[in-house]
This record gives sequence, structure tokens and C-alpha cells, in this order.
Amino acid sequence: MGDLLYGIHPLYEALVAGRRRFKKVYVSKNRGTKGVQALLERARTQGIPVQQKASDFFRSRLGGSVHQGVAAQVSDFLLVDENTILSKAETESGFPLVLALDGVVDPQNLGSLVRTALAMGVHGIILPKARAAPLSPSVSKASAGAMEHMLFARVPNLVAALQRLKKAGLWVVGAHGGSERPVDQADFNVGLVLVIGGENKGIRPLVRKTCDYLVSVPQKGTIDSLNAAVAGAIVMYEIVRQRKRVN
Amino acid sequence: MGDLLYGIHPLYEALVAGRRRFKKVYVSKNRGTKGVQALLERARTQGIPVQQKASDFFRSRLGGSVHQGVAAQVSDFLLVDENTILSKAETESGFPLVLALDGVVDPQNLGSLVRTALAMGVHGIILPKARAAPLSPSVSKASAGAMEHMLFARVPNLVAALQRLKKAGLWVVGAHGGSERPVDQADFNVGLVLVIGGENKGIRPLVRKTCDYLVSVPQKGTIDSLNAAVAGAIVMYEIVRQRKRVN
Repeated sequence: MGDLLYGIHPLYEALVAGRRRFKKVYVSKNRGTKGVQALLERARTQGIPVQQKASDFFRSRLGGSVHQGVAAQVSDFLLVDENTILSKAETESGFPLVLALDGVVDPQNLGSLVRTALAMGVHGIILPKARAAPLSPSVSKASAGAMEHMLFARVPNLVAALQRLKKAGLWVVGAHGGSERPVDQADFNVGLVLVIGGENKGIRPLVRKTCDYLVSVPQKGTIDSLNAAVAGAIVMYEIVRQRKRVN
Repeated sequence: MGDLLYGIHPLYEALVAGRRRFKKVYVSKNRGTKGVQALLERARTQGIPVQQKASDFFRSRLGGSVHQGVAAQVSDFLLVDENTILSKAETESGFPLVLALDGVVDPQNLGSLVRTALAMGVHGIILPKARAAPLSPSVSKASAGAMEHMLFARVPNLVAALQRLKKAGLWVVGAHGGSERPVDQADFNVGLVLVIGGENKGIRPLVRKTCDYLVSVPQKGTIDSLNAAVAGAIVMYEIVRQRKRVN
């Protein structure tokens, strides 16, 4: 098994994070950019074999993906359980911040949300086993490698997981364009699970009902006039702004 | 000349906006989705010929683009000059909000910024003639058709344009990760030009110097840990939040 990770940022961040075993790094014969050089240096420091490959190798293994001339055979991405995320959050911050994604099936949107979440100090991300993009190398690429540092739990039942997190003292807040409560009228100085819905359908009704309350981003036009990754980023920013700190 | 616009949202929004002449709408023989039907109905109401085409037509003209089985031969996207944007802004709002993009060369990022800008009530967008992605059908697609409603000016010299807008009474604020002024510490209850830089290099030094001041989004990690489109969205939201209204 394992993954063929590709692109400068995913490889570099996976080396820094140290959570994946690297079997081998492959580099295209024609790539001598600074980013690639820094990456290879880091790989060699960590004792990982580096092998040159013709561009055919990349084309046949990665098709049209933007691999920037580097790839690596690495171990599978490791998931954790939700308690690991919770205890990390409680250790690091008086105000845990957990993200729950319901139906984010587009790897670009998932990657974008993961990248923003890392920058905004989110402690971990909970995904349902169904209705979520797999945590593939393309998500790592779309997250500019942020995925390699983030904790993820996949749960069989998102509603049940949210209920457990509520019992643990967290507030569950959903971002929902139809809500009449503007996001800046909520109080985010509490431990939080922020629920973000998918590209087209938003948060499923049953998950929505499980939320303590829903918030919307003020906007012109139809309720889905913001992209899911952008709406999610705005709510994460508003949480950080109110708390006056990034975790 | 003209463009081959594709995808449900771009075609629909272009029909609604009424700024492009439609020569013909093409629809794939196998597409009967609700979105396509609504689009064809709208096209027929506006007296535009609709022609069925085999999937080969779409493949040969649009390659791997996500066309959703619809395309249209339309007139070129119309640009305006910056004064048109300014007078629209002044008519519609006591607080004009203009976006200036410096070096946003990625069509996905440009499309995302345009989509968010429309939702946040931005009056118009100024782009330099060089160092910007062209306003192509793929940008319209990435903006979910928002591009068809937005006013754009392309200027030969962005610094000179910003200076003219300053003379007209607007404040020029740049989003710059290196700034020590958090975005929520600025006062946005004034007429504004918000400058957003490109994916890797941010705002060019000379453009940066032209800004009245720079703001940054609070975040963990390196200064470029947020994607340009996400950082731009957060600053636009902060402006709307402070003003307590979308234009």
C-alpha cells in the first residue's frame, strides 16, 4: 500500500511532520529549481534514498497532476480518533477548535479548507467515512502540504460524533447560508466544533439539527454565492478574531 | 473573435447579466439535468438558437474542462475604464469598495476572488495589463459565473491607477502577510481600494509603497500560509463586517 505523494510542498511538509515513512524520493532529471534542491537536501539529511527518473515515469504515474518534478513513495496517511484530537485541543488551548466537514467531496475544496485550518490554529478535523474526499496525495497538494501536519479522524456517524463532542463540553456551530444569525453575532469564546457543509448541498439536515446553532456570512445575492472553502475560511477567521489569538 | 463560454453557471449568469451577445448555445445530446434545462429555457426565452452536439464537439473544443454539457459562442468580455467603476461605486454606496489585483496569474484564484468579490459587494476590479490571468471562459467558470456581473478595468500601470484613485478620495490598502497591522485593527469605514497580490510573490514592492497602509490576517506559521484567494476573502469579509453591510 502507501501513497505516491507529489509536489514540493507535500513532500517537504511530510518530511518536517515526520508522520509518514519515506521509502524513496523520485526527482525528474530536468528539475533543478531551488525548491527541489532544498527538498532533496532535507531528504538526504533524513537518510532517504533519492532516485532520478525520466519525465515518462512522472507522466505514467501521475498523469496531468502538477508534480513539479518530485514524488515520493511513502506510507499511508495516518488517521487518529476523535479523542486524540480532543485531548490535543484541550492541552494546547483553553478554547478547543475542531472542524467537522460534512460532504466536502471536492479534493480542491478539501485541500483549501485544510490549509486554512492549519493557518487558523484548528486542532483537528473530523470527516464522515462516507461523503468526504479521501485524504489522497492530491488533497495534500491542494493543501500546500498542510494536510501532513493536521490531525484527522474519520467517523462512521458524524451526528453521533458531534453528540459525543457536545457531551465533552464543546459547542457545535454550523456554517449555513440560510441562517439569519450573522457570524459576527455569535460568541466564539468557547470550545467549538465548526461544521462546514459540502459544495452544493451544504450541511445535511440531520447534522444541521445536531448543531447548537447556525451562522451565516453576510453576502449579496443567493445563499450559495460563496464557495464552501471561502465561507469556511471566513468563519474560521471570525473565530480567531473574536478570540484575539490563533491557537 | 469572441469566446466559447462553458458550464451552466457562466452561461446562465451571462444571459442574466446581458452584457454578452449570444450567437448560439450548444448542448450535449446526453445532458438532461435540471440545471441544463433551466438554462436552455432561459436561452430560448431570449431568442438564442440552441443546437445539439455530440460529445466529440465538446471534447475537441474544450478538452478536459468541466463543461457540464453546455457551451455558447458569445461576444468578447467587455472591459470598462476605472472611472466607470468609480462612478458606479459612488452612486451605489457612500463607501466605495474597489479591488486591485497585482499578479494574480492563476485562473482558479482569480475566479475565486471574483466570486467572493461579487458576494461581498465589490464595485469593480482593476487589473494590470501584464501580470494577470486573462478574463477567459475558464475564469468565468472558476467564478461560478460571477465574472459576468462584475466590472473590470485593465490598466497599463497599476501604480498610476492607484494614485488616481487616491486623488479621487479613496484609501489604498494592501493585504500583505508581512504587515504587523492585523486586518481588524484598520478602519474600513472609508472609501477603499483593496490590493491583493499574487500566489507566490504577493504585492510588488512599488505597488506596496503606493498603498496608504498594509494589513495582515492573523495566522500561525509562515507568512504565506494562506492562499491568496482565501486571504483576499477574509479581508473583504472584515471590510463588510466593520461597515455592517454588504454594498
